Amino acid sequence: MPEVEFWCEFASTYSYPAAMRIEALAATRGVALAWRPFLLGPLFAAQGWSDSPFNLYPAKGRYMWRDLERICGALGLPLVRPDPFPQNSLLAARVALALDDALRPAFCRAVYRAEFAEGRPIDSPATLAALLAEIGVAPEPLLRRAVEDANKAALKAQTARAAALGLPGAPCLTTPDGEVFWGNDRLEQGLDWARAHAASEKERT
Amino acid sequence: MPEVEFWCEFASTYSYPAAMRIEALAATRGVALAWRPFLLGPLFAAQGWSDSPFNLYPAKGRYMWRDLERICGALGLPLVRPDPFPQNSLLAARVALALDDALRPAFCRAVYRAEFAEGRPIDSPATLAALLAEIGVAPEPLLRRAVEDANKAALKAQTARAAALGLPGAPCLTTPDGEVFWGNDRLEQGLDWARAHAASEKERT
Repeated sequence: MPEVEFWCEFASTYSYPAAMRIEALAATRGVALAWRPFLLGPLFAAQGWSDSPFNLYPAKGRYMWRDLERICGALGLPLVRPDPFPQNSLLAARVALALDDALRPAFCRAVYRAEFAEGRPIDSPATLAALLAEIGVAPEPLLRRAVEDANKAALKAQTARAAALGLPGAPCLTTPDGEVFWGNDRLEQGLDWARAHAASEKERT
Repeated sequence: MPEVEFWCEFASTYSYPAAMRIEALAATRGVALAWRPFLLGPLFAAQGWSDSPFNLYPAKGRYMWRDLERICGALGLPLVRPDPFPQNSLLAARVALALDDALRPAFCRAVYRAEFAEGRPIDSPATLAALLAEIGVAPEPLLRRAVEDANKAALKAQTARAAALGLPGAPCLTTPDGEVFWGNDRLEQGLDWARAHAASEKERT
């Protein structure tokens, strides 16, 4: 079973529908997923952006909100605009990384739901504690572990890997053969690619 | 039959597969198309960009070329990288606008093919003359008409309308009810939207 990495950023709007869709799409195709929360901030800073490009470039921003509204509407996903936008996603990303692999997908979805369906502040430890409790994790020890040096370093390393892979934004899929697929609208294509490539690898061996 | 406007820019990479796909997609859905060549330069300049964002932001650029390669590969469309990129599209856009409506789609496709499949310079009057001849139009009178004041003004007005509609890039579809769909990957969605909206308009009347 090929493993695809799913790169998401909690402040990223298109990561919301992607996070809600990806598991079913991958399961249908027999593709395994590794969730890779990371931070877009350092990647954007390297391009000279100190804010979301959707704020810096109003035509892109206006289009994105309407596009996202249509996408969520078609999927039956509630959508509220986080205020402020973008949300500070640092603590949420640290918490996601501090979790066991098996718990990460449910926590990530819970963060996106809180942020984009319920308008809750995802930089608040109280919000994150409630989401951890929701997925059956004792909040206090995990929130402590999230801000330990080793976990902070792990998030930095994960973000550095995202930059090294050349991710242009979020969400992205990366495949074992080094392809990058960017956007909620590339999930199907990326998973199909991974499956087709795994099949052709198998034929060659 | 609802009419959708198809906004394309000859320097735009994703406009190439879109221009090649759009007619069949629209015909299947019973949607009429109006081709609207325009210039992205003034819209980009208003955002502070003096070059293609794919040149200004290398991570985006590298991703786009690989993404386009995969898209064209899947469609069986040849792809060469125009040199220089982006091509100066001013004269081609003027020529496209100077043509009769009925001849514009074939000319637009010919320009994209010359540029992205054959690597020919689309700012060259000789290239454009050859493409006009290909679609059965006498080149010289048309090239003269293209640079007359009235036609130059018409292209300026078309580009101003693109800006007023809030187009964030190219290609775009705009629908009679004011929706904008951006990207080669939104063609199906935009056409489906136009058809569904026209159907519901009809039900109400």
